[in-house]
This record gives sequence, structure tokens and C-alpha cells, in this order.
Amino acid sequence: MQQSSTHITVRTQGKRLYDITPQVTDWVADTGLQSGLLTLYIQHTSASILVNENYDSDVLVDMEAFFARLVPEGDPLFIHTAEGPDDMPAHVRSALTQTSISIPILDGAVALGTWQGIFLYEHRRMSHTRKVLLHAIGE
Amino acid sequence: MQQSSTHITVRTQGKRLYDITPQVTDWVADTGLQSGLLTLYIQHTSASILVNENYDSDVLVDMEAFFARLVPEGDPLFIHTAEGPDDMPAHVRSALTQTSISIPILDGAVALGTWQGIFLYEHRRMSHTRKVLLHAIGE
Amino acid sequence: MQQSSTHITVRTQGKRLYDITPQVTDWVADTGLQSGLLTLYIQHTSASILVNENYDSDVLVDMEAFFARLVPEGDPLFIHTAEGPDDMPAHVRSALTQTSISIPILDGAVALGTWQGIFLYEHRRMSHTRKVLLHAIGE
Repeated sequence: MQQSSTHITVRTQGKRLYDITPQVTDWVADTGLQSGLLTLYIQHTSASILVNENYDSDVLVDMEAFFARLVPEGDPLFIHTAEGPDDMPAHVRSALTQTSISIPILDGAVALGTWQGIFLYEHRRMSHTRKVLLHAIGE
Repeated sequence: MQQSSTHITVRTQGKRLYDITPQVTDWVADTGLQSGLLTLYIQHTSASILVNENYDSDVLVDMEAFFARLVPEGDPLFIHTAEGPDDMPAHVRSALTQTSISIPILDGAVALGTWQGIFLYEHRRMSHTRKVLLHAIGE
Repeated sequence: MQQSSTHITVRTQGKRLYDITPQVTDWVADTGLQSGLLTLYIQHTSASILVNENYDSDVLVDMEAFFARLVPEGDPLFIHTAEGPDDMPAHVRSALTQTSISIPILDGAVALGTWQGIFLYEHRRMSHTRKVLLHAIGE
């Protein structure tokens, strides 16, 4: 049994889903692991991780539209407003999605379903540099 | 340290929670692992995984009622409508619940709490065959 | 490769986020693991786990305000009411947040981001004793 770790960096430009599937699957292939477990972990509280459909880009547009409506900016409910009207909604959106996701490695590859992609979900308006940790264990 | 992988197949018939606890716990028992980590991963973007109360079946009814109201079918917000009025809501419901869950293995068994069951959550109306990957590592 | 398991117990007093970061990071340090994977798992269906901002406590107040509004107590939608008006909302809030979270261990420490803390999220009004399982694997 062996393990490997790395991180990937994503430069975001506004609230939407960013496909990180190629970076993730390429790294797992490089580890040489034939079977095991991949874990993704995001080191932020205003961006998150999502496995989602990667075929029709309209799905990504609708996903953002839904979360923007569910957690509106400038909601008078919120008292944490010092970092801008999109900051507290970003924390809530992160809580509603995922901070970590684990995916089995089978036959030397990340065992994604046919229509699945791995996305970083940016919840802030301004550009950010986001860091996602990858950990793989197996043999 | 050793690892095992398998998958279970669930034939769904509409939007609700399907208890997969016995299939999961039986497989973990068969691995012979005494301590370790079990990970469940679903290879779909319109069905998800949930650990939830398994005692009163009314909880499952209410859970579905809540998600059906929170993410209504035919919402005019959505532009991804080609696959039917329940498809984009299914992706959102998947995003709001879980794609992967990891549970420790202790004393040779999945360490579920007293009232916890493991469920596949189907978010589409039509019947589907769903695949959940299981990975266990330990000794 | 080696693994360790333990659990931490949290005595809660009402619906809010409880910071468990020190208990978690101290235990991981005690395992002596330099690199690996930490998994947290909560054995309850009316309390959950969240990685969230740990700097401004207003974030915790707003988070609870949001979830209290999104999943209101005494909602006439719910039929599972025998355990009180806050029980079914607690199951929904658990479904919307996390039952398990996995975080890489790097350089002998849990690889949390700068502003991240680990929280137990209590969704019931009355005081409860909650159990969070910790599992670490690595070397």
C-alpha cells in the first residue's frame, strides 16, 4: 500500500463552476495506482467541490442560478457583511455543497460515472486563487 | 493493510430514498476487515447518497416532500429542460446531498449510529439502474 | 502504512455550530502520522459536521439563521412530528450538510486552510451528547 499527495491551484473569475477533471485524473494516472481511493479537499470556506454533469453546459448555468436565488446576496438576515454582500452567502453555499469528496480508483483511473465531472465551485464575485488538495492511497 | 472494492446495483422506481444498508454492511462483513474505512461513491448526477434515520419511514416521506418543494420541477429559472422537467432539479438535489460518504469500520462492522441507515436517493421520476461503488481499506 | 481510530464526545446545548478543531487536530498530532488521510464521521441524523470559517463568530450566527429559515420548525409539510417540531427539520438540515468529511494530513498536521475550522452542527433544541468518530490512515 502506498499514498501520494499534491494540490492543484485554480484561478477563478467569479461565481460559477470550474471543471478540474483533467488535472485530477491526470495526476491520479501519474501516481501509477491501479486501485485505491482518491480524496479531494478544498482549503476554503467560500468555494467548494462538486461532482456534477459535465455534458451540457446549461446545467452549470442553472446550478448557479439556483444557488444565487436560494442564498441571495445582500440578504438582510445576515450580520456578517464586512467582507461584502457575497461573502456570507458564499459560506452558506459552501456548507450546502461539499468540502471533500472521495472517489475510488479502479483499473488505474478515477472511477467517475459516464456523465460526471469534478468541479471547483467558486462562490465569490472577485477573482481568487483556490487550492484543492488531492490525496490518493492504494496499490 | 489491505483493500477491497465492489459495486452494488439498485433498480429505482421514482423519486425517493432506497435503503441499501444490508447490501453495504454484508459486503463489509465479507471483506473480513476488523478496522478501517468504508467509502461509498455514486456514479450518477441525478441520484445521490444519504445517511439518514432508518426507524420511522415518515422521515423518508418528509425528506422527499422537502426536497420536492425546495427544488420544484418545471421551475422557469432552468434552461436545461431537454431531458424533462425533473432532470435539472435532480442535478440540484444531488448537489445538495452527497456523492460520497466515508464511514469507519470498527470491530468488523460499519460504525453506523443506532438510528442510521444508508440510502440511495433517486431524484428522477422514471425507473433507473443506479450503481454505487464501495471501497474498503484497513486490516 | 498504519491506521488509528478514536471518537470525541460533544455535549451540545441547542441549535448552533460547536468548534471541535482542537480535539481533532490534537488527536491527529498524537497519532504521529506525518502524511495520510483523516476522516470524521458523525453517528447521528439530527446533528452534522461542517468545515466553515472560524474567524468571525458572526458567520456562525448567520449560518444558523439561514438554516433555521430554510427549514422552519413546525412546517405543516411534515408528518413526522412525534419527536417534536425541531426533529424533522434536524434530519433535513443534516441531509443538507455533511455526515462525513475527509481531510489530508500533511507534515504531521490536519491540512486545514487558514480560515477553516471543524464544527459539529447541532440541529436539535434540547441538550444532546454527540459522538464523532475519527479515523486516520497514513505513515
